[in-house]
Amino acid sequence: MSRIERFDAAAARLGYAFDGEIKIGGNYVPLVRHGEFVFVSGQIPRVGDTVVVTGAVGTEVSLERARIGASVCIMRALALLRQALGSLDDIAAIMRISVFVQSAPSFTQQSEVADAASDLLVHVLGAAGAHARTSVGVLQLPKSASVEIDLIAAVTHR
Amino acid sequence: MSRIERFDAAAARLGYAFDGEIKIGGNYVPLVRHGEFVFVSGQIPRVGDTVVVTGAVGTEVSLERARIGASVCIMRALALLRQALGSLDDIAAIMRISVFVQSAPSFTQQSEVADAASDLLVHVLGAAGAHARTSVGVLQLPKSASVEIDLIAAVTHR
Amino acid sequence: MSRIERFDAAAARLGYAFDGEIKIGGNYVPLVRHGEFVFVSGQIPRVGDTVVVTGAVGTEVSLERARIGASVCIMRALALLRQALGSLDDIAAIMRISVFVQSAPSFTQQSEVADAASDLLVHVLGAAGAHARTSVGVLQLPKSASVEIDLIAAVTHR
Repeated sequence: MSRIERFDAAAARLGYAFDGEIKIGGNYVPLVRHGEFVFVSGQIPRVGDTVVVTGAVGTEVSLERARIGASVCIMRALALLRQALGSLDDIAAIMRISVFVQSAPSFTQQSEVADAASDLLVHVLGAAGAHARTSVGVLQLPKSASVEIDLIAAVTHR
Repeated sequence: MSRIERFDAAAARLGYAFDGEIKIGGNYVPLVRHGEFVFVSGQIPRVGDTVVVTGAVGTEVSLERARIGASVCIMRALALLRQALGSLDDIAAIMRISVFVQSAPSFTQQSEVADAASDLLVHVLGAAGAHARTSVGVLQLPKSASVEIDLIAAVTHR
Repeated sequence: MSRIERFDAAAARLGYAFDGEIKIGGNYVPLVRHGEFVFVSGQIPRVGDTVVVTGAVGTEVSLERARIGASVCIMRALALLRQALGSLDDIAAIMRISVFVQSAPSFTQQSEVADAASDLLVHVLGAAGAHARTSVGVLQLPKSASVEIDLIAAVTHR
């Protein structure tokens, strides 16, 4: 299967579509490319106009639900890369993802939330999806999202 | 108007000067350049020796006041780039800003705080000021600053 | 003294060894290199299987103990770079470290925690260890670590 086919299959499994406009708010852009590097803005688990996973993980939101949120974030990041690059084939490496988890005070499984995003990246991109990662637990996120993920990719010159 | 002229006009509107030494603490540097990329250290809204916007946004600090704090952070980052590069003309792109907002537990308008920084970047730099962005709500910041912003810029070779 | 000798001396002073496998969890990698840049994953103060500094700084954990945690984080990052690059000699610059401190609500000395990491970087790497820095106070970290630090390095081509 191609990367795009694996991406589409993962979207079907999640039950969300990522083929329309990916909305972001404010006076900034979804991603910036310069030379070999692409910086993708922080993604929350928004599908269309709805943030589908909100609240503090560990109390209001379960680990499993937070992992779905992380999956939606990373699918949005991949969808933005696909739109900007025309496909996912030019992604040479994912340099780092930063995973911010809206955490209850005693919730310490930020890595387990982030693993859902990591697994999906490697599943879709293969070896090029291997990435460095930083996961932290924060007090709040925009629109009370449970997870926010940003990403830096390296792309091959064509 | 040139970028520098727009920068100076924005500083005048804010009512703060950014032409002296930009103080940072500790054993690190305001920015590091390597090749085409410049990484600017996290900036808090410090003017001279005073952090001008402190406390949790949403309770101790209003959204409007936090936006002024974000504006001061980004002006400091631009001032550091101006000092290091000799002008603002060699900035080819702002790859990403990360905006950390000291948030009350129920404050979810981190994006609206960050918008003040984004608007200013685009105002001063024009199209080169378009940037990727990550905004999160954190529990505390150094010196109880209400906002901290770091930045990665791409510069043209001369 | 060479960089490696200073690294080993710093490890001896800390009382921890960093010459075995540096364990990380999950489906990601310790670092990713592309071109001149290396992104190192967020490091917590883990030695072998034990996170040696846990809890909120300012209440459960003292500033001094948090600084030891920050030192362990940065030694792990350097150990990973050493393993990947074969030595520390090819590090041309440290572009930025991001320092996340698990903070009590009123703890505002994140910079003082981060200074321990900054001092060690400059001590081991000399002028190449000068770096941009972002320090924030977060609610929680994986495994209740008191500190987490990630790093971006620039390396010379060989």
